[in-house]
Amino acid sequence: MIETMIEQYRVRVAQALDQRLPAADLHPGDLHQAMRYAVLGGGKRIRPILVYAAGTAVGATLEALDGPACAVEFIHAYSLIHDDLPAMDNDDLRHGQPTCHKACGEALAILAGDALQALAFQVLCQDAAMNQSPTIRLRMLGILAQAAGSRGMVGGQAIDLGAVGRELSLAELENMHIHKTGALIRASVLLGALSHPTVESTQLEPLDHYAKCIGLAFQIRDDILDVIGDPTTLGKATGADRALDKPTYPALLGLDGAREHARSLGQDALASLASFGAEAGALRWLAHYIVERAY
Amino acid sequence: MIETMIEQYRVRVAQALDQRLPAADLHPGDLHQAMRYAVLGGGKRIRPILVYAAGTAVGATLEALDGPACAVEFIHAYSLIHDDLPAMDNDDLRHGQPTCHKACGEALAILAGDALQALAFQVLCQDAAMNQSPTIRLRMLGILAQAAGSRGMVGGQAIDLGAVGRELSLAELENMHIHKTGALIRASVLLGALSHPTVESTQLEPLDHYAKCIGLAFQIRDDILDVIGDPTTLGKATGADRALDKPTYPALLGLDGAREHARSLGQDALASLASFGAEAGALRWLAHYIVERAY
Repeated sequence: MIETMIEQYRVRVAQALDQRLPAADLHPGDLHQAMRYAVLGGGKRIRPILVYAAGTAVGATLEALDGPACAVEFIHAYSLIHDDLPAMDNDDLRHGQPTCHKACGEALAILAGDALQALAFQVLCQDAAMNQSPTIRLRMLGILAQAAGSRGMVGGQAIDLGAVGRELSLAELENMHIHKTGALIRASVLLGALSHPTVESTQLEPLDHYAKCIGLAFQIRDDILDVIGDPTTLGKATGADRALDKPTYPALLGLDGAREHARSLGQDALASLASFGAEAGALRWLAHYIVERAY
Repeated sequence: MIETMIEQYRVRVAQALDQRLPAADLHPGDLHQAMRYAVLGGGKRIRPILVYAAGTAVGATLEALDGPACAVEFIHAYSLIHDDLPAMDNDDLRHGQPTCHKACGEALAILAGDALQALAFQVLCQDAAMNQSPTIRLRMLGILAQAAGSRGMVGGQAIDLGAVGRELSLAELENMHIHKTGALIRASVLLGALSHPTVESTQLEPLDHYAKCIGLAFQIRDDILDVIGDPTTLGKATGADRALDKPTYPALLGLDGAREHARSLGQDALASLASFGAEAGALRWLAHYIVERAY
């Protein structure tokens, strides 16, 4: 059962994150507690699950995937901490709990985010269970740094900032999301695949295409859920995009048009896995899940 | 003349930083402009100069040192952006100019800091002029990640936050600074030394000791300058530590005691260079400069 496998990935990454986060009583304790609060407090773990799923599709061992899975989740968790800050989205709730700055104070939240970014790179450098060659590790680090930086995730957030209150064309909206969420989702799939020592470029290319499609579909679904979602299920308030006058897919394409666009991207993602067998089952399941998810 | 050499390093790193920062008109332009504003606006460039000086002491080429020099300065620059934020030190001036959040807005300043951290790691991964093996590059990346993270620089800032308004012992104060400034200064010296392909551990050890000593001396001098410095020369307000009720060396040891402590660390740093010849001239000059500097 694929759902069972996905659930195992989720349990596995929770444990791997716990192990790789500094202990709560390690000096300075308040910083390490803030980091643990932000990372271990919940979340769908889509990115690390994609690492495991893509790695499994090319035959990597789960042990080799723990480090990359944690690295992408640390980057994601830090971006949420900073995104929730009063100067950014000013959110009070995340995963149904007070956001990091609400729980730990704004200064410590900024620092916890900063430290999590450094930890992501440290894990990829030093994780003992990774069996990649130094050359591949360097390639993975370069992929993560690019995906996290000004031409990737952070760039997407800056585009988002500049877009508030403006009318965006569909091309501009896609450009924003390709950076904001797409880059790290793509990096997750690539890092998973590169965790197999002899992965071939003929395997990397379709996986990269898969990742581009589901990255965009993920964001479209996010926009849809901000309109139709249940705040209790989501663990955060809905209607935030409209309240902040943010451009969204439903605003641009209508709710049905947005749904249609997400589904077509999901189909495209599945098609790119045609050369893979049953070992890509988790990736296929995730393509469906991302398009249809309720939270 | 050593001063001429140091000035050459300063000019060289300004150019190297400019080349490695994304162009101001590259999308998203406002983010890249904020990054460039924060990095190119000035500063003493102590950390990159230490990279060049330590590299030169072991025979590395300047070309191989540009990437590591930029990486440590990007980390330093991002930490200043975040440190100046209203939720942190709430500073309006840096290098005699408006701080990044004053010039670019708070949200963009947070993101510019985040992107600079990612860029530091990206440069160490991918800089073409570095001639280190993948294994050494990975070691350098690990050193930088650790120095930047919760057990290094960011940890020091968290300790600093927790220390405001508290009485610290000398040991606690040193512990704070070993993290806050010492870790990145140490990383700068080590990254410089590791830039020579065949550096020996018999060279790394004394350089590491040198770096520990001047890292602490640097911070003591910073505390002294906050009491006796000229705001115009410093490019920032003085008296900030006392106003924020921060623990400092002059408060704990008196002004003369703090000066004496810095000088003795400077002597210790020089002594650790005994096995080096004239090629460590810049490191020796820096040990004097750090203890006696006026800004």
